[in-house]
Amino acid sequence: MSKKFNTTPRSGKPPLILYGRHAVISAISNSRRQISKILVTSDNAEELRAICTKFQRTTVSINVVDRKEIERILPANAVHQGFAAYCRELEEYTLDEICRMAESMDNCHVLILDQVTDPQNIGAIIRSCVAFNTLALIMQDKNSPTETGAMAKASAGMIEHLPIIRVTNLTRAIEQLKAAGFWTIGMDGYAKTTVDKLKKGGKNAIIMGSEGKGMRRLVEESCDITIKLPMNEKVESLNVSTAAAIVLYEIGK
Amino acid sequence: MSKKFNTTPRSGKPPLILYGRHAVISAISNSRRQISKILVTSDNAEELRAICTKFQRTTVSINVVDRKEIERILPANAVHQGFAAYCRELEEYTLDEICRMAESMDNCHVLILDQVTDPQNIGAIIRSCVAFNTLALIMQDKNSPTETGAMAKASAGMIEHLPIIRVTNLTRAIEQLKAAGFWTIGMDGYAKTTVDKLKKGGKNAIIMGSEGKGMRRLVEESCDITIKLPMNEKVESLNVSTAAAIVLYEIGK
Repeated sequence: MSKKFNTTPRSGKPPLILYGRHAVISAISNSRRQISKILVTSDNAEELRAICTKFQRTTVSINVVDRKEIERILPANAVHQGFAAYCRELEEYTLDEICRMAESMDNCHVLILDQVTDPQNIGAIIRSCVAFNTLALIMQDKNSPTETGAMAKASAGMIEHLPIIRVTNLTRAIEQLKAAGFWTIGMDGYAKTTVDKLKKGGKNAIIMGSEGKGMRRLVEESCDITIKLPMNEKVESLNVSTAAAIVLYEIGK
Repeated sequence: MSKKFNTTPRSGKPPLILYGRHAVISAISNSRRQISKILVTSDNAEELRAICTKFQRTTVSINVVDRKEIERILPANAVHQGFAAYCRELEEYTLDEICRMAESMDNCHVLILDQVTDPQNIGAIIRSCVAFNTLALIMQDKNSPTETGAMAKASAGMIEHLPIIRVTNLTRAIEQLKAAGFWTIGMDGYAKTTVDKLKKGGKNAIIMGSEGKGMRRLVEESCDITIKLPMNEKVESLNVSTAAAIVLYEIGK
């Protein structure tokens, strides 16, 4: 399950280091996640060893170190809580797999992000996706960050529980979802319909652009409908992760 | 309206410096906000002068400076976008005033935060409060930060539009709201009722604790009812600002 691998990948890409209590413990509990080495402070070592035993992580090397040694390998000011783990990125799903999963479902929804790039926002969105039973998160290959420690931390470890898909062309992905029976719903501050007025149930794909800029024109044009949040006009927009949480809550009901 | 005052308060407390485009422009547009001096980069100076003229900010000193001079007066890595303003904190409302405002209303809600201390979270919550027409935000005097630049920035300037009240004793405030006809609703991950099942309308006071810890026992005991978000059990809790946004959206509908 957790086959050993070198912590410095051949590609020259820096290794993926997850950090923070929730992110590291969730990673250990996820049998799809390959972990080679864990750094832990002495006050957390006993708990960590018990968790590794529980999830049969017998080949992972556990190094008890002081906080400074963890800080040395992480971005400045990363809140690690005494936990860091050298991991491999999760294998991503394909859109075909998601469409096949959806075949047998009467009600489900996916979230599509267009040009949302901040790992903190994406992490927070992942957490909301898991909370409200989103089937998968779909992003564009080119303009979205790959999995990072900050993203996993912001997701409170929930990144282990959500299929994430990167596609080359979002418009084509939307067409594929439509063909698979999804109703495609774009979020747009200028839409006429508010999210609470949406018909509930069925297969829905929600598409959100970045805060301020919104979706790109071609992406928006491929939506079946656009909706907005019912908000006081003093507020131009909400943070994208806040808006996503509300829409996922409403659609997931 | 915007009477001049010294930028270093006598109390020794550091001056309140708002920063960021939205926060500074919103402050200028708020006639209740006293501003003594604005620092702006040359690329934003023309826009800023036009806004000051529009809102009759004739006594504010506008200093065109380079980015470094703004960075010097702000916390490290503050995203100021070329705008900073020396201000006075807004005069806070009292709970009596809020109860009087609510007297003539059939439907309204307030939000009470118990032990939420992070200015970023409070700022994001303020933004959601304005978006969903919350009448006022109530916090405890002792354990909540006073207005800061980071809070105003995280609120995207919406701090100018929300009455904020600090009380010495939250339990007593809850009793006063009850006496004024408010139904008091505590957020608790272990509650039996979910927020979508709440009866809509009337006067509601929503009470939220900090992420993880929740409300303190005495505060929780003074609630008429506790509710939770309907969430997948993999997710223990959401970030307090995300949870607040969803509840305010649902209550504000």
